[in-house]
Amino acid sequence: MLLGKVAGTLVASRKEETLEGLKFLVLKTLDVDESETGSYVVAADAVGAGVGEIVMYATGSSARQTTYTKDRPCDAVVMAIVDTWEVGGDVKYTK
Amino acid sequence: MLLGKVAGTLVASRKEETLEGLKFLVLKTLDVDESETGSYVVAADAVGAGVGEIVMYATGSSARQTTYTKDRPCDAVVMAIVDTWEVGGDVKYTK
Amino acid sequence: MLLGKVAGTLVASRKEETLEGLKFLVLKTLDVDESETGSYVVAADAVGAGVGEIVMYATGSSARQTTYTKDRPCDAVVMAIVDTWEVGGDVKYTK
Amino acid sequence: MLLGKVAGTLVASRKEETLEGLKFLVLKTLDVDESETGSYVVAADAVGAGVGEIVMYATGSSARQTTYTKDRPCDAVVMAIVDTWEVGGDVKYTK
Amino acid sequence: MLLGKVAGTLVASRKEETLEGLKFLVLKTLDVDESETGSYVVAADAVGAGVGEIVMYATGSSARQTTYTKDRPCDAVVMAIVDTWEVGGDVKYTK
Repeated sequence: MLLGKVAGTLVASRKEETLEGLKFLVLKTLDVDESETGSYVVAADAVGAGVGEIVMYATGSSARQTTYTKDRPCDAVVMAIVDTWEVGGDVKYTK
Repeated sequence: MLLGKVAGTLVASRKEETLEGLKFLVLKTLDVDESETGSYVVAADAVGAGVGEIVMYATGSSARQTTYTKDRPCDAVVMAIVDTWEVGGDVKYTK
Repeated sequence: MLLGKVAGTLVASRKEETLEGLKFLVLKTLDVDESETGSYVVAADAVGAGVGEIVMYATGSSARQTTYTKDRPCDAVVMAIVDTWEVGGDVKYTK
Repeated sequence: MLLGKVAGTLVASRKEETLEGLKFLVLKTLDVDESETGSYVVAADAVGAGVGEIVMYATGSSARQTTYTKDRPCDAVVMAIVDTWEVGGDVKYTK
Repeated sequence: MLLGKVAGTLVASRKEETLEGLKFLVLKTLDVDESETGSYVVAADAVGAGVGEIVMYATGSSARQTTYTKDRPCDAVVMAIVDTWEVGGDVKYTK
């Protein structure tokens, strides 16, 4: 999994019908020091994350292993809101 | 998922037979500010997107989770036409 | 999917037994203007492509969705020979 | 598979419910000479690895082939703690 | 698939139990001219390859389509030992 910051939302009214009801978040991907990498991904939100929160997302077929995304054409899902992580004994982020 | 702009179409008459009837779109991939990244992808069109439209596409096994692409050798699908997205409170794109 | 030019062939007599009979093509990957990107991929040939032809290939589990590659340890397949594509109203390639 | 060094841990209390009980490790990815590449990945820990250990991790659907991660939205798993590897006859790492 | 040179081996005694008995090879990835790219991958060996041999490997779920790797948390497998390949009419490698 990788880390991302919820930067915003995306709306698409015309879409594959099984996607009806999914909320799409625009994530800016983060490196391990919480700085932005310059990349982004649009992910379905399985946990009710809000703009500004730091989240963890899964991609590929693993993104379909939630009840929310199962059997849908969705390749990225926010599956956790991060409380804290540490690297080398240093806390890099706390919510 | 990532964002792309429908740049054109691709025709292939000799192909794996299960692909018969699929429409292939040439997408230029976009970054979160709607500028082109220089990359492209050819994706099956599951939503009837037109040239010039901004779309969202899924890749890998997730690209086969539409009735249109199920069980076919297709690794990218346009699964939504984007209406709008915002980042940091700023609307980055509106259809 | 991405585009490639069939640059040559590869022979491997000692291999996983389910691969017996597959033809392997060396593809040089192309960008959307038909120039070579410098990358390559070795793909199974599901459509009878010849050296010099421009093809479309699928990767990952989607590469196993042909009768030719089903249930085999193969992660790239040529699934179409391209006739033509256009970008921005310009024909970029015609066979 | 790729090699990584366990750099730290990550805690997420609000998450997809099937993830309850998984331990998440922050891995710094290594090249073949055991130097850090600058990239990271967050992986579920299927083997009880500790901070500072060198591990091997699998990604994608393969990350769900442990009893610990089966059917969960998890795309990276630590599946082995490395004892040693050698390249060109030189031992590059020994635990 | 991509090409690699078997550079060495890796030993991991503490691992997911289904991995018991697999042999892990350290591959240096090659470009189409047989020069090293600077990247590596650790792959399970399904064909009995030796150090110094040029092999072809598959990644992702395709790496689990051998009897050796089926249902295991393994995302790369050596599935063929290469005899020869040619590009543009030139033999680039012969065993």
